[in-house]
Amino acid sequence: MEDNFSKTAFRAKSASKKLAVLSGEIKDKALLLVAENIEKNKDKIFEANRQDLESAKNLVESGEITSSTFNRLKLDENKMRDMVQGIKDIVSLENPVGKVLLKRELDEGLVLTKTSCPIGVLGIIFEARPDVISQISALAIKSSNAVILKGGKESINTNKMIMSVIQEALDSVPEFPKNVLNQVFTREDVAEMLKQDKYIDLIIPRGGNKLVKFIKENTKIPVLGHADGICHIFADESADLEKAKKIIIDAKTQYPSACNSVETLLIHKDFPFRDELLNALKEAGIELIFTPESWHKEYGEKKLSVKTVNSLEEAIEHINEYSSGHTESIITENKENAKIFMNAVDSAGVYHNISTRFADGFRYGFGAEVGISTNKTHARGPVGLEGLTIYKYTIEGNGHIVKDYAEGVKSFHHKDLGV
Amino acid sequence: MEDNFSKTAFRAKSASKKLAVLSGEIKDKALLLVAENIEKNKDKIFEANRQDLESAKNLVESGEITSSTFNRLKLDENKMRDMVQGIKDIVSLENPVGKVLLKRELDEGLVLTKTSCPIGVLGIIFEARPDVISQISALAIKSSNAVILKGGKESINTNKMIMSVIQEALDSVPEFPKNVLNQVFTREDVAEMLKQDKYIDLIIPRGGNKLVKFIKENTKIPVLGHADGICHIFADESADLEKAKKIIIDAKTQYPSACNSVETLLIHKDFPFRDELLNALKEAGIELIFTPESWHKEYGEKKLSVKTVNSLEEAIEHINEYSSGHTESIITENKENAKIFMNAVDSAGVYHNISTRFADGFRYGFGAEVGISTNKTHARGPVGLEGLTIYKYTIEGNGHIVKDYAEGVKSFHHKDLGV
Repeated sequence: MEDNFSKTAFRAKSASKKLAVLSGEIKDKALLLVAENIEKNKDKIFEANRQDLESAKNLVESGEITSSTFNRLKLDENKMRDMVQGIKDIVSLENPVGKVLLKRELDEGLVLTKTSCPIGVLGIIFEARPDVISQISALAIKSSNAVILKGGKESINTNKMIMSVIQEALDSVPEFPKNVLNQVFTREDVAEMLKQDKYIDLIIPRGGNKLVKFIKENTKIPVLGHADGICHIFADESADLEKAKKIIIDAKTQYPSACNSVETLLIHKDFPFRDELLNALKEAGIELIFTPESWHKEYGEKKLSVKTVNSLEEAIEHINEYSSGHTESIITENKENAKIFMNAVDSAGVYHNISTRFADGFRYGFGAEVGISTNKTHARGPVGLEGLTIYKYTIEGNGHIVKDYAEGVKSFHHKDLGV
Repeated sequence: MEDNFSKTAFRAKSASKKLAVLSGEIKDKALLLVAENIEKNKDKIFEANRQDLESAKNLVESGEITSSTFNRLKLDENKMRDMVQGIKDIVSLENPVGKVLLKRELDEGLVLTKTSCPIGVLGIIFEARPDVISQISALAIKSSNAVILKGGKESINTNKMIMSVIQEALDSVPEFPKNVLNQVFTREDVAEMLKQDKYIDLIIPRGGNKLVKFIKENTKIPVLGHADGICHIFADESADLEKAKKIIIDAKTQYPSACNSVETLLIHKDFPFRDELLNALKEAGIELIFTPESWHKEYGEKKLSVKTVNSLEEAIEHINEYSSGHTESIITENKENAKIFMNAVDSAGVYHNISTRFADGFRYGFGAEVGISTNKTHARGPVGLEGLTIYKYTIEGNGHIVKDYAEGVKSFHHKDLGV
């Protein structure tokens, strides 16, 4: 197994070098053919999905998977249309690779250029949703990264069929390198993937927080994503009652299992409409919990921890201690308080008078999204194609040597040339 | 020990939150006072350094440290002047925190802003050079990051004295938070530091490749830096002999122990002046080595591996296999070959007709430099202040909820407002 995985990883690395120098036109052409081929073969994909659903039914009955997992597994015409449209949307985005980020003349005839380039090989580990494959594959191709995909075992037939349909389209483009997309299937493969820091440059887990936590704790490869989504809303003493009701109800009930749903409500002790607010939340079907043990909780359902705080500072301290660094919001009519809160809270998203549910790449206008990161390095918050790139520095010269500069014969003038 | 270190780490994290909201003016004021205080107390620092040098002399005699380590340990008037000037240079750089990177109206009254912010707490582990303390401390303060520093035991008295002089200056600024700079001293502290991913956001090792390798292999915290510097020069069949001589001699002999010195020379089989070139290198005191075992070697002295390749492609493949991803250069009069090489070689720096020794933050015009990174995420190549920052997203709204957009009552218009 180890041997097989190493071969896959080595092939992916080799493919990534070829993909790195492929033109944007060829990548877009290949992606459009992929979208077309998925459309053309949707019945085959539905058929494979039906096999997976058949097996999954038994797993639901025996309690091995939940009915919500079953629903995520199921492909329908809507999801299929979104898959195809998603690829076309990615084609329409700007090529994130080969962008000149800086151009600077260091000295006469000595020009430094900073250019965006792909990261290399991405390891993608995802759970039930088979539609993730086409999205991630398209993002990887658009950003010139090779991928090794490991999907959930419940969707194995669907995953294999989607991959073979994608691969067939890629194979029809003679310039497109082989082995850009690679699929592995076992837990042992995942264990190997997490060890292969020689070949894999970034791991992206797409799934529940157990999966993400396991991965973060078991690899030295950088991991892009978030484990928890413990988001907070703070209503200060000047909060508008109607805005507070509307925002908190949206943040808790519009999609309770989303990572950007609110989990804890902090209320300033001098907020005058506390009872009215809490009653409105209860009427919206939200269960309120007032114990300190709940401050670490991500409910994923219509439950909300509530705490009274004595000051803006206490609210900020509570959030910086208990938040997972995902998204927080302050409800206040006091602009100064909003400013202090947004500066001092150390999370990927910090909002004023809106729902935490806005934390999303599509809503931010990034087009496609790889995921939401709570990392403090590389990429933070909703991550688009830019998060799948890094950069390199090139210098053009003509016999320039460092000795001349060290000895003062020549000197740098560092003139930015604009990009 | 574990307990003590945790307290230090917790205090550093708390300090980082206060530092994150400190104005650029206060940071610069504090830094100028630090520069002044070092200048004023240089005799005390020299005296502490003399104690360290006294002990180190015995270590050189007993062979425990090399004479080059001894030299790096020694402070003189030049190094002292550079320390003070280095801090002043950092003051003159733009505040890297609080820069607006993107401003976008998502919908009427709903404005997204992406703003640069500090990473949090940096763990800095460095070897003999005590002058690193003032440089790293100044970079950390300028970028609003708290630090935990662990210096080499050979320079313990110097390190302690420099830190106390720096701290004295910071303490004289009432607005400046306590515990921004923290120093630890033992190997056990380092072991604890590498485990504290709750409090420490980034580790920066400054030292030899053994140190860096050890750290990279023993922590899940992101590490910024490079272990090896196995840099290559490829002379193709059209290379100009005089340029080749000049560039290779500079890249190998100007400072052989630097990470950006060349270690392997690849020569195209049809390069017509092979013997002349190799003779010139030997005359410059370079020992040439022709065995495949040497392709992994970083000599750090005037030795150079030499390999004949049959094509540009073979040169690229060799480099992508054996390079540490630091810096490579092609010597060619063929512009097309240069372009292919610079696109296909996957290293932080890829040059045409210049010495690999140009890989350096000062030479690139970045002002101060944290180090050179061979990472494929976050920051690559010479890293300046920007590499010590990340960003957060804030949104200003007025009661906006996601339900309205999900149900089609409202829609996003994503209008960039310019920054």
